[in-house]
Amino acid sequence: MSHDGREVRIHSVGATQDEGCVLFLEEIGGARLLPIVAGLNEGKALALKASGLELPRPMTHDLMLSLVEATGFSVVRVLISELREDVFYARVVLEKDGHELSVDARPSDALNVAIRAACPIFVADEVFEKADLLMKPISGSDVAKFRAELESTDPSEAFKALEGKPAPREP
Amino acid sequence: MSHDGREVRIHSVGATQDEGCVLFLEEIGGARLLPIVAGLNEGKALALKASGLELPRPMTHDLMLSLVEATGFSVVRVLISELREDVFYARVVLEKDGHELSVDARPSDALNVAIRAACPIFVADEVFEKADLLMKPISGSDVAKFRAELESTDPSEAFKALEGKPAPREP
Repeated sequence: MSHDGREVRIHSVGATQDEGCVLFLEEIGGARLLPIVAGLNEGKALALKASGLELPRPMTHDLMLSLVEATGFSVVRVLISELREDVFYARVVLEKDGHELSVDARPSDALNVAIRAACPIFVADEVFEKADLLMKPISGSDVAKFRAELESTDPSEAFKALEGKPAPREP
Repeated sequence: MSHDGREVRIHSVGATQDEGCVLFLEEIGGARLLPIVAGLNEGKALALKASGLELPRPMTHDLMLSLVEATGFSVVRVLISELREDVFYARVVLEKDGHELSVDARPSDALNVAIRAACPIFVADEVFEKADLLMKPISGSDVAKFRAELESTDPSEAFKALEGKPAPREP
């Protein structure tokens, strides 16, 4: 949690049938996934960087970060700030000597900058409330954790937790 | 002419068959055209900007310029600096308070920045010497200008200019 919203990380990138792509952001410490539709080029640039492949020449977003850093500023975070009429808005936040400033960007560009700057990514609470979200699938380790919790649970505690709740009706 | 080389402007952008494109740079005050092969995305971004079409959201290179300008720096020029093993190299030159710095870039990104910053573009003399060049086709106005010069020429001056040159041989 932060004054900017919930922290997320890039979960995955998927291609759509109409030459676009979907960037999935994963809530850190939560189960929500935020899908953001983006252009194929920006999705490719993100996937390429995430793959760890080193290219001989700077790609467009590499140049973007180099230019910022050459000025003495750092990219300190990226924020998916707004969802308005089905369009996501983002801001890239720069900092130098304690002075912060932010610039309007498309989320796909902002995320490409974030992955290169290795800076945190936030999603405004309002965006999480308005967006169509997905929930992360339950993983094997989630199931194992639930089993372990169940085994260590005192049954009398479980019954106590149910007290006061309406009894389930017979069908 | 400049300490950086010859000034050029963007002449045109052409698509190649293999999903790439060619950016043609035109020498200002000269007849040489420098073709630079680039990626299709960067070529499209350049053509889109050159078309004057206003888009609702900042494209990638628009964000790049916004970030630079937010830091207080300006993009003052772009230089196609080097041609090595068939690869063109470029530099984007930033300036603030008389202090200049430059950053390594691919020519296609550098030109996309230049067209947005409306800054001059230079090509190093060495690049013009090493590259495969084209010559600009003669235009109707070139022909008209040559005719006007011819009509205003004193024939005795023309003969004087030929003096000392070897007489053409009969075939």
